[in-house]
Amino acid sequence: MDQLLQQIEFLKEIDQLKLVLRQTLICGGERRENSAEHSWHLALAALTLSEHANEPVDVSRVIMMLLLHDIVEIDAGDTFIYDDKGNENKMEREQIAADRLFGLLPDDQKNKYMALWHEFEARESADAKFANSLDRLMPLIHNVMAEGGSWQKHGINRAKVDTLTPKIYAGSSTLGDFANHMLDDAVEKGYLPS
Amino acid sequence: MDQLLQQIEFLKEIDQLKLVLRQTLICGGERRENSAEHSWHLALAALTLSEHANEPVDVSRVIMMLLLHDIVEIDAGDTFIYDDKGNENKMEREQIAADRLFGLLPDDQKNKYMALWHEFEARESADAKFANSLDRLMPLIHNVMAEGGSWQKHGINRAKVDTLTPKIYAGSSTLGDFANHMLDDAVEKGYLPS
Repeated sequence: MDQLLQQIEFLKEIDQLKLVLRQTLICGGERRENSAEHSWHLALAALTLSEHANEPVDVSRVIMMLLLHDIVEIDAGDTFIYDDKGNENKMEREQIAADRLFGLLPDDQKNKYMALWHEFEARESADAKFANSLDRLMPLIHNVMAEGGSWQKHGINRAKVDTLTPKIYAGSSTLGDFANHMLDDAVEKGYLPS
Repeated sequence: MDQLLQQIEFLKEIDQLKLVLRQTLICGGERRENSAEHSWHLALAALTLSEHANEPVDVSRVIMMLLLHDIVEIDAGDTFIYDDKGNENKMEREQIAADRLFGLLPDDQKNKYMALWHEFEARESADAKFANSLDRLMPLIHNVMAEGGSWQKHGINRAKVDTLTPKIYAGSSTLGDFANHMLDDAVEKGYLPS
């Protein structure tokens, strides 16, 4: 019963991820996206797009990583991908958050979730590369659908976005090419400054 | 490439699940929960609580079902669990929605997602019973955390909630017992009318 109570406590605590707002808008541009619904969307992207991964992946592990990958933001906040200063101490802040949040769980689950999160962050395994590829791709799609979205708001140009596309290619050349074509089109339409 | 474009179209379309509001509030009671973040929360509940299922379950299938289970609400809307009239034609409305939404995908994926959704709705397999059990349990936890939440707003009493607990027991006796104790406590605290 103690084990169950620890698990329920964790599930109650992670509800707060629904209150962490990202810079990305939802596809229609109505409002900012939160990190919980973003994680759901990525998990379904993994399930739907796994055939395009560069290397064979274990889809259920990719999904688990994506469900867990942002939980640390409950304590550490969402760090905007183009915020160089915020990204300097991101790992330290997030490790402290992971210790507290995954630490709510029984030890075996704490270790399992922590390992999946570290694997995602390390971007070395095939599963992690593909998971990161989706985490980079989806916001681009959102920005195009919102006719510029957070690009326009934060003055992001094509050259800046291009610094991220190698992480899409690292997990999937097909998705990398797709993203590149989409960005060409976004520049042409005036959603993304060249 | 056509296959990829269909898949991306599906992923763009399901973004709208973030705009479907449930009756349940998020745990702190700040606002209503949307069906996308709810699905994320349930997927992590499955990953975390699977040891408590009555029968052995394939956790990755349970997670897939839960990621997909509410997508039909994009067209059919969220039907409040205590809305008898709305629940009368729920299956028809949702089947039409499933045909359109899963129909955006390549045939093999359409068939796979449709089958998982039907399995969830049928509540017959061990995986579906456990998935449904979590779908019933989590709103109770939210209502307790929000000190009454949608129970108070809609005048729901203990007898009414008790009509749902068999669906929790069907997937997990442990979670059913946990829910019962929690409901006793909620009545005592005045969150739930007896």
